[in-house]
Amino acid sequence: MEKNFYKKLSFAVIGAGNGGQAIAGYLALKGYSVNLYNRSIERIKDIKQKGYIDLEGCYNGRGILNLVTNNIERAIRNVDVIMVVSPASAHKFLANKIAPIIAPNQYIVLNPGRTGGALEFKNIIAKYNPVKEVCIIEAQTLLFACRSLYNGKVKIFGKKNEVKVSALPATRTKEFTNIIKDVFPEFTPSINVLETSFNNIGAMLHPIPTILNCGRIENTHGNFQYYIDGITPSIARVIEEADYERLLIAKKLKVNTISLMEWLNYTYGAKGNTLCEALNNTKGYHGIFAPSTMETRYIYEDVPQSLVPISDMGRHLGINTPTIDSIIQLASIIHNTDYYRYGRKITDMGLDRLSTVDEIINYVVKGEIDSSNEGVVA
Amino acid sequence: MEKNFYKKLSFAVIGAGNGGQAIAGYLALKGYSVNLYNRSIERIKDIKQKGYIDLEGCYNGRGILNLVTNNIERAIRNVDVIMVVSPASAHKFLANKIAPIIAPNQYIVLNPGRTGGALEFKNIIAKYNPVKEVCIIEAQTLLFACRSLYNGKVKIFGKKNEVKVSALPATRTKEFTNIIKDVFPEFTPSINVLETSFNNIGAMLHPIPTILNCGRIENTHGNFQYYIDGITPSIARVIEEADYERLLIAKKLKVNTISLMEWLNYTYGAKGNTLCEALNNTKGYHGIFAPSTMETRYIYEDVPQSLVPISDMGRHLGINTPTIDSIIQLASIIHNTDYYRYGRKITDMGLDRLSTVDEIINYVVKGEIDSSNEGVVA
Repeated sequence: MEKNFYKKLSFAVIGAGNGGQAIAGYLALKGYSVNLYNRSIERIKDIKQKGYIDLEGCYNGRGILNLVTNNIERAIRNVDVIMVVSPASAHKFLANKIAPIIAPNQYIVLNPGRTGGALEFKNIIAKYNPVKEVCIIEAQTLLFACRSLYNGKVKIFGKKNEVKVSALPATRTKEFTNIIKDVFPEFTPSINVLETSFNNIGAMLHPIPTILNCGRIENTHGNFQYYIDGITPSIARVIEEADYERLLIAKKLKVNTISLMEWLNYTYGAKGNTLCEALNNTKGYHGIFAPSTMETRYIYEDVPQSLVPISDMGRHLGINTPTIDSIIQLASIIHNTDYYRYGRKITDMGLDRLSTVDEIINYVVKGEIDSSNEGVVA
Repeated sequence: MEKNFYKKLSFAVIGAGNGGQAIAGYLALKGYSVNLYNRSIERIKDIKQKGYIDLEGCYNGRGILNLVTNNIERAIRNVDVIMVVSPASAHKFLANKIAPIIAPNQYIVLNPGRTGGALEFKNIIAKYNPVKEVCIIEAQTLLFACRSLYNGKVKIFGKKNEVKVSALPATRTKEFTNIIKDVFPEFTPSINVLETSFNNIGAMLHPIPTILNCGRIENTHGNFQYYIDGITPSIARVIEEADYERLLIAKKLKVNTISLMEWLNYTYGAKGNTLCEALNNTKGYHGIFAPSTMETRYIYEDVPQSLVPISDMGRHLGINTPTIDSIIQLASIIHNTDYYRYGRKITDMGLDRLSTVDEIINYVVKGEIDSSNEGVVA
């Protein structure tokens, strides 16, 4: 170990939920230096005391942590890569904490970013220091399927073969995938963060079936198979309509994207004449139960950090999203929270001054607004 | 019987579903002359052969019909009162059939009109003959709780103590309730058809729980109690929000209206700290099951003839109805029908030239547009 020490990347893992514990444990087990941070001390006090995370499932063993802390400054100081593995609803809070202390040679990786995560992160950092160069990487999805059995013990059910990532600016994506390839060879380059943001499948699969099964979730405490019993022909039609709205926007942004139906086929080999059939034919979805209450990440994360930015990008580009907007409205009533107001919008993503698709693409590629274009009306 | 014959009103009952068979059987049992019409001959061919309807439940006996026909001209010729007891989705079709042949001394009664039924009926008749005086009565709800056991046999579970009615024009409401009082003493005068239209409780209770239980309805074929299991706290919150939108419009139209919560208390004596509790405490709702599929009147009648006219009146008056609009959008996808486009709108109700509340009220009271006001910008 000792002789390779200076070559090895060091990591901070931000967030000690299921995904955060999995990534921290996995990296530590592989011999990397890992600082684990969580906002509330409550969740990490057992792990702090033990100093390690045990893995089971696809990986077995003990990952010794370098540091466990709720002090973010200590967590990220001098590490090479900051892996953000929190719900996207925490991105704004975390970006404001990280912005003043981030160093130019550190990478921030959002696992995942949902829609517009990297853009929002960068926008917040730019408010603290407009000239600071930062490289924010957005992963399209979480690498692991995992669950924490208790704090300090994680079961890893599976690891994806491929997770698309893009840097903001996109000119630095290959630099990042090169640096990280020994650790995460699964990370493969995407065109830009618009692509990782608008191939947001969770946005399609989470809020709609939850809301259209609202009565059943509350009346049975989620005692039904979420995908198999919960996605019926009518619900699949609503998902397809929302997916169509997402695709319209993605195509306007010139990113590579596929429909949910194609994604199911590509990812799981699931087939069917209708979306409902394809979902029902997805083996991995059998046995997954519904959330037990309406207080679920399927709403409080996927509505404000996925559906709202998709809808607001649509509005910005002149594309209507009536189906997505209906779900935002109903979610807002059910959670008594104005998700449109508090969700991630064009202004949060720093795109409000960019009125054309080309300006937006130019920004995500270069990471800066062409000053020559500023104020010019096309 | 013979000596009273010339005093007795004669009726046409339009529509031979549950409600139509109940009203036809009830009137015939009371000795009134009844012509029963249905658009499709299929449903009435057994009744036509027998010539009567048998009642059980609150009323027992055989009502001999004067005529059973699918010829609307024969059905309504020379009758005093035309009782329309069809789904509101048939109002447009029926109004176009009745318009050319209606006589000035005949009353048309919509049982019920849902929202804007009388206005739409009148508007269609006016297109055929702008100077023809007609009196259209809108009932707020159906008088009977009933179910046809088979064609020609109806079980009447209950009769409401009071059903609000209004004539269009409202100046003729009392004339009608006077004429009908021996037959239906339950009909009590409402201020105008805006009041019967905007106290549309079914609009609040039908589409929302159906759509927010979409998965369960399709997965279990409606095998749960609609109001008791199906209306959970989150669903009740959505209903309350839609009800609030309805109340805003009703108040702007200066009609007497009460919230759904107050209505449950007034009608059923149901109490609770929340709408959900009050619904669960409504005895009459226990044991009522959900629709077995999404192809239900709770959507295909209540969305286009209740929610759409409420929403479009809101738009006309500058009141937003985002919750109601969300439900219209989801219903439209689920039924693959653009309900907003095909539903009852301000133009269908003949109100498009009336831009102020006072103009609208003046019209529903007098049944005509003040020509002195036309073209005047307020």
